Amino acid sequence: MGMADTRFDTRRRRLASELAAQRIDDMLVTNLIHVRYLSGFSGSNGALLVSKDRTAAIATDGRYLSQVAREVPDIEATITREVATSLVGTVTEGHRVGYEADYVSVNQLHALEKACPEGVTLVPVSGIIEDIRLVKDELELTRLTKVAQLGVRALEGLVDSGELRAGRTEREVAADLEYRMRILGSERVSFDTIVASGPNSALPHYGAGDRVLADGDLVTIDFGAHRLGFNSDMTRTFAIGEPSAQLREIYDVVLEAQLAGVKAAVPGAKLVEVDKVCRDIIEQAGYGEYFVHSTGHGVGLEVHEAPSAARTGTGELREGMTLTIEPGIYVPVVGGVRIEDTLIITSGAPRVITEWPKDLRIL
Amino acid sequence: MGMADTRFDTRRRRLASELAAQRIDDMLVTNLIHVRYLSGFSGSNGALLVSKDRTAAIATDGRYLSQVAREVPDIEATITREVATSLVGTVTEGHRVGYEADYVSVNQLHALEKACPEGVTLVPVSGIIEDIRLVKDELELTRLTKVAQLGVRALEGLVDSGELRAGRTEREVAADLEYRMRILGSERVSFDTIVASGPNSALPHYGAGDRVLADGDLVTIDFGAHRLGFNSDMTRTFAIGEPSAQLREIYDVVLEAQLAGVKAAVPGAKLVEVDKVCRDIIEQAGYGEYFVHSTGHGVGLEVHEAPSAARTGTGELREGMTLTIEPGIYVPVVGGVRIEDTLIITSGAPRVITEWPKDLRIL
Repeated sequence: MGMADTRFDTRRRRLASELAAQRIDDMLVTNLIHVRYLSGFSGSNGALLVSKDRTAAIATDGRYLSQVAREVPDIEATITREVATSLVGTVTEGHRVGYEADYVSVNQLHALEKACPEGVTLVPVSGIIEDIRLVKDELELTRLTKVAQLGVRALEGLVDSGELRAGRTEREVAADLEYRMRILGSERVSFDTIVASGPNSALPHYGAGDRVLADGDLVTIDFGAHRLGFNSDMTRTFAIGEPSAQLREIYDVVLEAQLAGVKAAVPGAKLVEVDKVCRDIIEQAGYGEYFVHSTGHGVGLEVHEAPSAARTGTGELREGMTLTIEPGIYVPVVGGVRIEDTLIITSGAPRVITEWPKDLRIL
Repeated sequence: MGMADTRFDTRRRRLASELAAQRIDDMLVTNLIHVRYLSGFSGSNGALLVSKDRTAAIATDGRYLSQVAREVPDIEATITREVATSLVGTVTEGHRVGYEADYVSVNQLHALEKACPEGVTLVPVSGIIEDIRLVKDELELTRLTKVAQLGVRALEGLVDSGELRAGRTEREVAADLEYRMRILGSERVSFDTIVASGPNSALPHYGAGDRVLADGDLVTIDFGAHRLGFNSDMTRTFAIGEPSAQLREIYDVVLEAQLAGVKAAVPGAKLVEVDKVCRDIIEQAGYGEYFVHSTGHGVGLEVHEAPSAARTGTGELREGMTLTIEPGIYVPVVGGVRIEDTLIITSGAPRVITEWPKDLRIL
């Protein structure tokens, strides 16, 4: 970005308002995802202090001296090994300082307590930054869309080039797909690539192994790229040669559920209802017991983040949230199908950022 | 492994002895690296309870039902979403239960406190399992050696095939190297691959970008594979065409320091001394200010783990430890050199598991 990016300042202001509302004077941010979200700093060691008066301070170690100056030109940086304790040590007497109680370890808290000036109180805080992250801003939506499109192009290249075919191993296919993403600009995979063929497709959390793809297989490919902090997540299931009637039926049921789930993902929809729309179709087709996970999750700086479209989901969708819709059916030994898109919730129909054909493709 | 692997039982027994010595009745293990080390379970959600009487219990969720039975045949598994609290709930009244205070978050501790039966005391524990992990057993040494050799073969393939040459981008070279590792059986990279060319080679924590390799560049490649839980870590610096006299001098100094560091890595050597051996050579050559990191670290289930060969290092090397020796010189704008091997400390000279030529190779 080069110049100070006002989006980071806008995010910090939203945090500052929340802090004021909760009677917290300063918030110590140590979760690196949150440090990046609120400042733009992408190094592997850093902490941020955001105050209710909208000022901020950042600390990182000497390895990131020039990087922090480039990425965070609008906040003064302290260079130190002990990033969190050094920031806490600068807090004004009498202040209530929030810390991220979901991430700070018990021993880290003890170190912070020791580093606190007289009369400073440490206050556990949960969920404030996660709540701000729920609705994405334009910069996030742009980056999410671009990295999702990068994933689509990689998958399309894989299929169009004939690299997904009988006789190749799952690992070779995964390597080809990852190579394509890398060349297109992905910095790393957003999670271990799944290429699950034949009976392995019935294991929802399988990786990619030595099995050789064979005629009659279904092959589920679930994969993601990571670029500029943002992740993609997408799944398609393919057939190698003509599938059995049962596998084709499973595919049709999952596709029907997936399309219905996408349609249901509009502002105001309860997350538990979005899950139910998919689940009902699969249950009515008699495969309910084989849909063993939830329908979807948010995607952003983390590949799995809030919200959650699950039986236990709470709350409802809002414009600017992201959500995957990824129903699946997994029949042990026989095989499985999962179809997944990542959506951006808009005022109308959701924007599918992993747009790519979903009719069963026989290779 | 299939059958119950007695190595895991041996590791748990060592932990049980330590627990008894520290008057702890049961240890709740929640760090997933430690769960894997002590049980063999490789899933992404799990917790382990090891008792001083050498019994153990494991918990994971429904996704890993068959995996936990296969990987951990010798311990009864509880299937639940709330793995840590469910294990703590089973503890005998009056017991002192250790938890991993370096990793358990403040909010997780509160959940554990709520789940504790009457009369059970939670006790913060640090470093016990890390200390046991310091000296590797045969299974670990075998896997570490194999994954290191996988990395060497990938780098050799890259160089021999001519993929490292002027005209290609850093990202393309990184993609090729990662592809080769993947095909050779790597499950993922152990960290983001570094291909730092020309002036970028002066940035010790650079990644791999759009810069095109050009004649006169030095190119530092720092990379690792991950397989069966274990990581590799290795760095070589290459020249693209004839380097300047200054770059060649820097290379020679780093190589001299690296060879001296390897020679110094014997049982009984103080870690601070191993660092000093490398640092002295670089300082005497007048480049001391440009060696901005420490000399090395252990490699195992984590790519960076204890011990640490640094100016602030404590303790000494013992047989069965691992250590990288990776001195570097980074002259801003001009360029940099890093040469890194991973060693296993033996009773005699260390075993270099990333064995591959280190004389300057001009491509």
